[in-house]
Amino acid sequence: MDLWFTELQTPGMKISCKTTKVLYNEKSEFQDIGIIETEQFGRMLVLDDIIQTNIEDEFVYHEMITHVPLFTHKNPKKALVIGGGDGGAIREILKHPSIEKAVLVEIDGKVVEASKKYLPEISCGLSNERAEVIIDDGIKYIKEHKNEFDVISVDSTDPIGPAVGLFAADFYKAIYEALKDDGIFVAQTESPFFNKDLIKRVNKDIRSIFPITRMYTGYIPTYPGGLWSFTMGSKKYDPLEVDETQIPELDTKYFTPQLYKATFVLPKFAQDLIK
Amino acid sequence: MDLWFTELQTPGMKISCKTTKVLYNEKSEFQDIGIIETEQFGRMLVLDDIIQTNIEDEFVYHEMITHVPLFTHKNPKKALVIGGGDGGAIREILKHPSIEKAVLVEIDGKVVEASKKYLPEISCGLSNERAEVIIDDGIKYIKEHKNEFDVISVDSTDPIGPAVGLFAADFYKAIYEALKDDGIFVAQTESPFFNKDLIKRVNKDIRSIFPITRMYTGYIPTYPGGLWSFTMGSKKYDPLEVDETQIPELDTKYFTPQLYKATFVLPKFAQDLIK
Repeated sequence: MDLWFTELQTPGMKISCKTTKVLYNEKSEFQDIGIIETEQFGRMLVLDDIIQTNIEDEFVYHEMITHVPLFTHKNPKKALVIGGGDGGAIREILKHPSIEKAVLVEIDGKVVEASKKYLPEISCGLSNERAEVIIDDGIKYIKEHKNEFDVISVDSTDPIGPAVGLFAADFYKAIYEALKDDGIFVAQTESPFFNKDLIKRVNKDIRSIFPITRMYTGYIPTYPGGLWSFTMGSKKYDPLEVDETQIPELDTKYFTPQLYKATFVLPKFAQDLIK
Repeated sequence: MDLWFTELQTPGMKISCKTTKVLYNEKSEFQDIGIIETEQFGRMLVLDDIIQTNIEDEFVYHEMITHVPLFTHKNPKKALVIGGGDGGAIREILKHPSIEKAVLVEIDGKVVEASKKYLPEISCGLSNERAEVIIDDGIKYIKEHKNEFDVISVDSTDPIGPAVGLFAADFYKAIYEALKDDGIFVAQTESPFFNKDLIKRVNKDIRSIFPITRMYTGYIPTYPGGLWSFTMGSKKYDPLEVDETQIPELDTKYFTPQLYKATFVLPKFAQDLIK
């Protein structure tokens, strides 16, 4: 059967992946969850028809949303991931020996269940003794925790449906308060090619709350345009002042100590968005 | 009419662009040439059903295949582009005041004609008095020129059909001889995600001929995976030793003096290809 999964990435652009098997497809309280086997990218998690992660390229996103803030912090002990029910961010956080506790707060328990069953390479960290999985609304959770975390990663879906509130200034303020005095947060902030207005607004909001705001990028083949942005808000540490020669090598496939500084050097059109 | 142009980027992955008009479609002696109007990327040049360039994202490819080698050279006067019949690389080369002559050698005259007619924003440099357009086989041309060029950019299609010979060791040897004693060449060398074997082979071949070989990348939304590689062979100048603070600002949308060094810092999986 010539089966293709197709995502409408923008109103004028689609990506399609040849699909050999539908492993799981269920509607949860929040969204349609699919796990398919694709020829190019292996098993793939799809939420509301949008590609979230897959076996072949997941390392880029998960390494970049974690190692960059963790190495900006001098000694992170407690990390929080909002969203990210596939567990990939937790797996990467646990590679840092200083981490004592990595908390995942995912709104949709079915995403965690499906990821544990079908994506064990990605979700493996969730069963680690230093990991804690909480099924709850991230916005509610963050408001109930103050001065607690060293690093927070907002590993959300696109700013539609359940994730809208994760791109709001009020949420960034609550994150500021949930962080310790030298805490750092990072959010995935979409494509500099296709989501210019969103990046401008988010950057402005974060700058109004955090003394240090920086954007960096990574290449993710299955995300629209391949170029993806991450925005960091930091209370104390500036990544541009980190001595990258002091960053240790980790077991990674994308991130390197040399890449740490380079990833903050933006193409001109992306730099212009956040002037 | 719900019209979509679709490119099979790999056997398991497709990109589709909503198309409002087919402006030109003709078979030349070498290939099928299409120029379409797309909703997302504006006018787009398609050769044998593969996206070559378009109004919205062309700046990335054309800036990166020219400014990186030109700024590695201290004083480039004569530049050559093999392929690149759309003229975008020539337009960028002409932004360098030191350039006295920029020669384009394109095998398919119909690509140049169609680009002049339908893509004037890209092809505009071809009518500049410092530009020379030659319709000829690049492999033949390069063998007939010795010790003549400061910088050569190989702006080819994928290594199938007319462009196979532009990825061969013999061609790189002929380029070495066509360059002056401190000459530099760059070729587009496909995707580090999807063309690993090609990149390994090309890198090995270029290293066997040039004393300095470096790979760098750029993000091109309409190319498979978005991450694209360029491989540089240099007789004398090493880009890693260039003082980027001496690079002047040009009128660009992607390249910046700060990006010059950062673009050579590769993701680990890409660096591992050329170890």
